[in-house]
Amino acid sequence: MPNFIGISSNTVDRAHLLTTSYRNFNTPYGSYFVSKPNRKSFVEQRINQPNKFVERRKEIADKALEALAKKGYAKTSLRDIAAQADISLGSLSYYFEDKSALIQYCTRRYKRKFISDLLDLTTKPLSTKEFVDQFIDIFVHAITEDQDVHRLWYDSKIQSLFDETFQKTVGGIEEELSNMVTVVIHHLESLSGKKSPTSPQQAYWLLDGMFQHFLMAGMFGEKHIDKKLQKELKLFFSAVT
Amino acid sequence: MPNFIGISSNTVDRAHLLTTSYRNFNTPYGSYFVSKPNRKSFVEQRINQPNKFVERRKEIADKALEALAKKGYAKTSLRDIAAQADISLGSLSYYFEDKSALIQYCTRRYKRKFISDLLDLTTKPLSTKEFVDQFIDIFVHAITEDQDVHRLWYDSKIQSLFDETFQKTVGGIEEELSNMVTVVIHHLESLSGKKSPTSPQQAYWLLDGMFQHFLMAGMFGEKHIDKKLQKELKLFFSAVT
Repeated sequence: MPNFIGISSNTVDRAHLLTTSYRNFNTPYGSYFVSKPNRKSFVEQRINQPNKFVERRKEIADKALEALAKKGYAKTSLRDIAAQADISLGSLSYYFEDKSALIQYCTRRYKRKFISDLLDLTTKPLSTKEFVDQFIDIFVHAITEDQDVHRLWYDSKIQSLFDETFQKTVGGIEEELSNMVTVVIHHLESLSGKKSPTSPQQAYWLLDGMFQHFLMAGMFGEKHIDKKLQKELKLFFSAVT
Repeated sequence: MPNFIGISSNTVDRAHLLTTSYRNFNTPYGSYFVSKPNRKSFVEQRINQPNKFVERRKEIADKALEALAKKGYAKTSLRDIAAQADISLGSLSYYFEDKSALIQYCTRRYKRKFISDLLDLTTKPLSTKEFVDQFIDIFVHAITEDQDVHRLWYDSKIQSLFDETFQKTVGGIEEELSNMVTVVIHHLESLSGKKSPTSPQQAYWLLDGMFQHFLMAGMFGEKHIDKKLQKELKLFFSAVT
């Protein structure tokens, strides 16, 4: 039963995952699928030139992120972003067609780093305990240090429910996150020799719900979310280790 | 370990739930907590008069929902909402202080109905199979028929990460959802005599992640999400029944 992000949602057919969904990123489980190319827009076409344009775009995105991450998609104007990036509105639109393209670029850039950091763990010779501890460290760091980036991801995700220009980017990242969790669960199963009581797909939903919960708790000013998230992740992993 | 929404997140202390969090809504597990009163604004003060004002407010909210549900918080102006509700901007602001108050009112009104429909099941003399089937029916209906209302909930949830005026409403609904899942899990445990492998809190996160996934899949045009959601819910419940 392949779902809309192209991964079978109940019992995952391992062979299918390895040959179809995982490309471009090497893990012991095969190479990992990173992204499908978008239909190329006028601006996107320039990106294929690996030159100053690409580098300048990254610089602008880093600065734009500060404005976007502060107020969110709904309340940030291109004018705010141009001011934050210290460039003119005209220059900004040379690099990004509109606000939607910009938030999608930022989300993809930072979320992909998070995914590859977690996937990297499966390529290291770690014990089960070391693996779980390092996974938890990355998760906790995301909630306590990089919350603005991850908040933007959920902002993009919601925009995709109203604005179909977000669907390709959001669907792609959702697929990468889900595939990453599948690799992690299979890796843990092979380390521990146990079978996860939760399907990899449902494990992804659980981790996603947990992540959102602690992101929100942190934003709402709750104390010690690092310790609480650690405890919940240990409980989650205890079932498969 | 009580979390920011006031429910212990790992092993739930049943007595605490029954005496502290559940009020105003009768279930076999005690009466269910529905909401904390907000600090009263100028508009809110009028609400205590159970009169035409309250009724008119509901009517406007029903119409406003059509505008909000179509385009989302970011892209709907008060002007759009006034046009949809066929009243002047001045009249609209007599009933709702701003867009944020309006979306919160709509979200609370419709999400609470969903929660009480699910909680009602625990008060009926149903077998385990009947309970699970009816729970699944309500979930599937929410995804296939009421997706606009639930989409607004996630929109409000994201706004709460950027705008603290949303925190009270969103935190309150989040608490009600989480408490509802706790009641459901305990009810199933008492029906089946089995212990859920997932804590009630983690079960809520799993169901929330699943719900979002199928909401998104439906919006993205994926086919047969009713059947797919049914299958995932059956898998989820099979662990505790």
